[in-house]
Amino acid sequence: MKPRISLITLGVSDLARARQFYERLGFPVRKESQGDVVFFDLDGRLVLALYPREALADDAKVSAKGEGFRGFSLAHNVPSEAAVDAALAEAVKAGAQLVKPAQKVFWGGYSGYFADPDGFLWEVAYNPFMDLT
Amino acid sequence: MKPRISLITLGVSDLARARQFYERLGFPVRKESQGDVVFFDLDGRLVLALYPREALADDAKVSAKGEGFRGFSLAHNVPSEAAVDAALAEAVKAGAQLVKPAQKVFWGGYSGYFADPDGFLWEVAYNPFMDLT
Repeated sequence: MKPRISLITLGVSDLARARQFYERLGFPVRKESQGDVVFFDLDGRLVLALYPREALADDAKVSAKGEGFRGFSLAHNVPSEAAVDAALAEAVKAGAQLVKPAQKVFWGGYSGYFADPDGFLWEVAYNPFMDLT
Repeated sequence: MKPRISLITLGVSDLARARQFYERLGFPVRKESQGDVVFFDLDGRLVLALYPREALADDAKVSAKGEGFRGFSLAHNVPSEAAVDAALAEAVKAGAQLVKPAQKVFWGGYSGYFADPDGFLWEVAYNPFMDLT
């Protein structure tokens, strides 16, 4: 396998609400979006998809039962501490919940977390040691 | 916010096992990996990180309690049906569990699912309508 993730699909409980949130964040909707699937074009040939949670589980032939911590996070890196503050504020304005206010962290960076309307965790980070912006 | 995911972190229960799995898949480890974090360089300026599940929850200041379906999937798209079969076989050989054998799917593509050692779902897909390979 090539070291590649082509697409990340989030299973959501309210597709319209989730779509609106990511549109407010400025994520561009792909023209292939239709019915109960929404695709957003991200930088770097990566696509973020939204799909109903039950349908996603059904597609993988697994149970949709599950609760609590999902065990993963997405990170959005930015080039400065001020940019972390700005991105978190923008997410909250778009409807996110602030989970962890931005702060200096043990590994030497500066970051905070927000949750999207379905509770998916996004870290917004400034990492002075690894430029992923 | 730019439409960008810089990093995806999977919270794992056995870091050495998870690292070995992704190394067997051929994912290149970044030099910044150290202590209890492992970074893999993916195509498209995306990094896959492995980090202990409890530590990831703690970093976000949320409870690590959770079980069942995580509500998301990663997808690895390839350019043909045969390449789907090959990638799934490679993942199983590396230690994945085959969750859904490759098959023609309702949207006109061909795909299957595997789970990594921590149960994270990967779809391997051939999509004749959206080239993400």
